[in-house]
Amino acid sequence: MALGDEWFTEVCEECGSAFSLKVKQKLHEEQTDYQKIEIYETTKYGNLMVIDGFIMLSDRDNFLYHEMMSHPAIYTHPKPDNVLVIGGGDCGTLKEVLKHPEVKMAQQVEIDERVTRLSEKYFPSLCESNNDPRAQLHFVDGIKWVKEAEQGYYDIIIVDSTDPIGPAEGLFNEAFYRDCHRALGEQGILVQQSESPLYHIKLINAMRDAMRRAGFEQVHTLDFPQPVYPSGWWSATMAGKNWSLGNYREADINEMSFKTRYYNCEIHKAAMVEAPLLAEKLD
Amino acid sequence: MALGDEWFTEVCEECGSAFSLKVKQKLHEEQTDYQKIEIYETTKYGNLMVIDGFIMLSDRDNFLYHEMMSHPAIYTHPKPDNVLVIGGGDCGTLKEVLKHPEVKMAQQVEIDERVTRLSEKYFPSLCESNNDPRAQLHFVDGIKWVKEAEQGYYDIIIVDSTDPIGPAEGLFNEAFYRDCHRALGEQGILVQQSESPLYHIKLINAMRDAMRRAGFEQVHTLDFPQPVYPSGWWSATMAGKNWSLGNYREADINEMSFKTRYYNCEIHKAAMVEAPLLAEKLD
Repeated sequence: MALGDEWFTEVCEECGSAFSLKVKQKLHEEQTDYQKIEIYETTKYGNLMVIDGFIMLSDRDNFLYHEMMSHPAIYTHPKPDNVLVIGGGDCGTLKEVLKHPEVKMAQQVEIDERVTRLSEKYFPSLCESNNDPRAQLHFVDGIKWVKEAEQGYYDIIIVDSTDPIGPAEGLFNEAFYRDCHRALGEQGILVQQSESPLYHIKLINAMRDAMRRAGFEQVHTLDFPQPVYPSGWWSATMAGKNWSLGNYREADINEMSFKTRYYNCEIHKAAMVEAPLLAEKLD
Repeated sequence: MALGDEWFTEVCEECGSAFSLKVKQKLHEEQTDYQKIEIYETTKYGNLMVIDGFIMLSDRDNFLYHEMMSHPAIYTHPKPDNVLVIGGGDCGTLKEVLKHPEVKMAQQVEIDERVTRLSEKYFPSLCESNNDPRAQLHFVDGIKWVKEAEQGYYDIIIVDSTDPIGPAEGLFNEAFYRDCHRALGEQGILVQQSESPLYHIKLINAMRDAMRRAGFEQVHTLDFPQPVYPSGWWSATMAGKNWSLGNYREADINEMSFKTRYYNCEIHKAAMVEAPLLAEKLD
């Protein structure tokens, strides 16, 4: 059964699956210095951003990803003063980070300024904290940024990138993790989107191994639903400089001063559970 | 971007989304007295069963659904002697149920015998417990079966049906739940697949309300990943005759004598967490 032109389809060849959203119209398309960005208006998912043919986010379900990329790591650090977001040009992760009053500074380092400019226009709600005095938006290469960062400067580094092909490839290897390890303080935490537990176990394993080789004492993979990504089941992998990943600030989570739609203390615990399937293959 | 004929696509019109699997060949197609059944061989998901155009199960990911439809309910009952599966003609749920040595009898009541016969042929691993002496396979109407059941006879009723349109429609209403309540013993538990937490909150709410009106003291919705179903995020709703749904047999789960790929004690707890999004809309 063929879908007509009123659908945007992302094929995942190596998964043997495809996911489609019905669109009302294409709102924008441009080739930037780095990638091709398309914005669609869908029938049921609000606006949709696509980069190089891959779905990045939709209005409808991005809250799942953005909450899970930020809150678990931040609540795991005892004093998350300085947060760095690598990638994340749509500003959704930055917005979640800045919900934490204890965060003193949040830098977003996105290589492609056009992602942010288009997000300001087509996903304004994700950009509503961009003028927070604690926010800094830089449009430069994140790999270089981390390499040149002051030792021990950051408490949290969030790698909110595209898939490990194209511009984001250099964000998935030991050399980069080594730079992150150096740039993090003693109790620092790195967290990175790590694809689908069903489809990408090999990649998750490789990331975890590389993080450990880079010096991180502890590594743990979280999972959560993300309907617009392949399989609808997604993960983030946290790496801690010390053995702290189980010691999240439970009392603080339970007294959270901001609203979430998915994350809370119980979800934090639930997401930390690695199913037998994962444990088998991850270790 | 249109997908060619080498893809099977299920469109979810009311969700504005579609999910596709790449197929090698169609293995079988027939119109039974109840529905149209198709079997495909896919490139990455093994065999695939489709009923009336809706994906029922694939070799690759059915373990998620079948484990979560059976083990949480069975481990929540103190003495699950008699188990009834309504629908479930592929026999995957029956197989999981029969992994429990404490289960004395498991009846599968599927209206369409052809589902089971085709599953025996194309999904033989799901049918490997069909000759267990504790198993009974009946091919009759489940609604009538429950209506005529001896009062208090079952400990667990699992409603493993298609969506609430077509033959399964009568499995999603108060009259049916009332019959289930009557057919269950004092600590009896009903569990039913309850669609996507992202797409079908209204249906989940309606089911929960109807279960309560039918006399169930406690209702709780579980969630789990299920890549081949719309949104990839699925749920099952448990209803208990008394307030027992939080009292699962934790020690027994931790000493489980059989293998699972997704379910364990930690996943049980994790699946019981209702995210803020659900709680908002469910209550």
